[in-house]
Amino acid sequence: MGEFDLIRQYFQPLAGSAMTDQLVLGPGDDCAIQRIPAGRDLVFSVDTLVEGVHFPLNYSSRYLGWRALAVAASDLAAMGAKPVCFTLALTLPEANPDWLSGFAESLSKASSAFGMALAGGDTTRGALTISIQVHGTVAEGAAIQRSGARPGDLICVTGPLGAAGAALAFLEDPKPGPLARAMLVRYHSPEPRLELGQQLVGKASAAIDISDGLLADLQHILEASSVGAELQAGTIPMMPELVQLHGDQSLNLALTAGDDYELCVTIAPEVLKRLAPDIQAQLAVVGQVVKTPGLSLIGADLTDMPPGFDHFGRLV
Amino acid sequence: MGEFDLIRQYFQPLAGSAMTDQLVLGPGDDCAIQRIPAGRDLVFSVDTLVEGVHFPLNYSSRYLGWRALAVAASDLAAMGAKPVCFTLALTLPEANPDWLSGFAESLSKASSAFGMALAGGDTTRGALTISIQVHGTVAEGAAIQRSGARPGDLICVTGPLGAAGAALAFLEDPKPGPLARAMLVRYHSPEPRLELGQQLVGKASAAIDISDGLLADLQHILEASSVGAELQAGTIPMMPELVQLHGDQSLNLALTAGDDYELCVTIAPEVLKRLAPDIQAQLAVVGQVVKTPGLSLIGADLTDMPPGFDHFGRLV
Repeated sequence: MGEFDLIRQYFQPLAGSAMTDQLVLGPGDDCAIQRIPAGRDLVFSVDTLVEGVHFPLNYSSRYLGWRALAVAASDLAAMGAKPVCFTLALTLPEANPDWLSGFAESLSKASSAFGMALAGGDTTRGALTISIQVHGTVAEGAAIQRSGARPGDLICVTGPLGAAGAALAFLEDPKPGPLARAMLVRYHSPEPRLELGQQLVGKASAAIDISDGLLADLQHILEASSVGAELQAGTIPMMPELVQLHGDQSLNLALTAGDDYELCVTIAPEVLKRLAPDIQAQLAVVGQVVKTPGLSLIGADLTDMPPGFDHFGRLV
Repeated sequence: MGEFDLIRQYFQPLAGSAMTDQLVLGPGDDCAIQRIPAGRDLVFSVDTLVEGVHFPLNYSSRYLGWRALAVAASDLAAMGAKPVCFTLALTLPEANPDWLSGFAESLSKASSAFGMALAGGDTTRGALTISIQVHGTVAEGAAIQRSGARPGDLICVTGPLGAAGAALAFLEDPKPGPLARAMLVRYHSPEPRLELGQQLVGKASAAIDISDGLLADLQHILEASSVGAELQAGTIPMMPELVQLHGDQSLNLALTAGDDYELCVTIAPEVLKRLAPDIQAQLAVVGQVVKTPGLSLIGADLTDMPPGFDHFGRLV
């Protein structure tokens, strides 16, 4: 069996593994075909993970497949899109069956969990590089964008921050303890907030997925919306295990580490109040949008802040 | 200016450089948004080019941008799709302004020539790898697939074959002669048959773009359609410069070299006859689809054939 037959063998099952009612034609022709329902927009995003840059050398392929699709799908969550399918551009140094079966299995789990079928792809030889493009749909004109935040909106995050960043220190630990393991789960198996994103369509005024850290990503919303923000340091949600591990430094990680793939959303207070309780329960209010440009952090000990903050706790 | 600002500077102009009426939201948010017109299907394909595998080390970025988009867009041509937009996942060892400006300029020319706007992308650090996903649309259910070839259909190609393959020998030639230059143009600047592909919707029974050589790619049509083919060696179109350079070996290149990005299409004789003369003029008949599986080559000197042929000139 040739190496590309081998690859096809591993990935072909993913083409039929999930919801495919919109996928008119999957892998195997020059192109794939997707039929978008009337009144829906196609929403799409591509993310690349490079070995040694986005994940360590020899990172287990049994985590990588899930992680790669989750990272990409998280962008759909931020737009409020319903996931449909994805393409995989996989560049590999060799067709190692162990590696491939682990990767395909892990990707397959994510594909089923997120309801996304493999629509097509390209497999090439080279340094390990994974580009995944995700496709979703959203009601015409209803996608949540970064530019809609308005002064007075509350700033919310959808889960605890910083743990995945803290996990980086343990990725090559052969026997991580229980605290480390709690961090590692958040790194290996991020859960894109796909359902919550869809529930926030027409409610949230802006959203972004936190891939580079809350401060950096919130900054993108502020720029796109021409507004500022005040964050309340004491309200940033963190896992107790993170605080046990890092004490005073936990907040740094929660503000600047990016690998959790939670969402940061802005929403008017009266809209938040009217959300169903189970949706409200998934949103931690961490600050407020203000008219004056800039990002202030209230209540943090400045000596703990990462470089890039001025003496007013303001990101410069 | 940071390296990613630099990259944005070079690529942002491509977002508005071409037809964008379907592109509701381009680069800069978590996702891009495309609105597919009613009654059209989304057609998409991803292609990866890796330095040292798909193009030589130090290959000029002034050709690479065009070539990368052309190679990807050629898959849209094979489905008969109208091109709309593309995403670029670009992995680069460094942000070299010379390289980037050459690449962006060359990509921009292709983007305008093919009518495709940059919809989004991801830029990462690593070994030079370019993944481009192209999006087009076609009337619902009308995409030309590989599986529609029927016995009696004529097999056509859309232009001369083999020249881009012959160019490989000259890619690092500092002073190529006129014959070599004629080959090099075909390698550097492939012209995906986008218009012709659209004109063949509802006419061609099957199509594929020739990326791996006529024999290999026709084989994909035969398998998908459960048919066989007889090719007439004497009818394979070749540039006179190729024949001057390679004499008896030209046919080998024309049959097995893949870099020209012409289309191979099958079409019923009575349908071909009724096509407008200017469309017929772009189709060279090179053989016929037959019922018996297998691919026969008629009229070639077998000693000239590449390995993989049996003594009957039949691909084994």
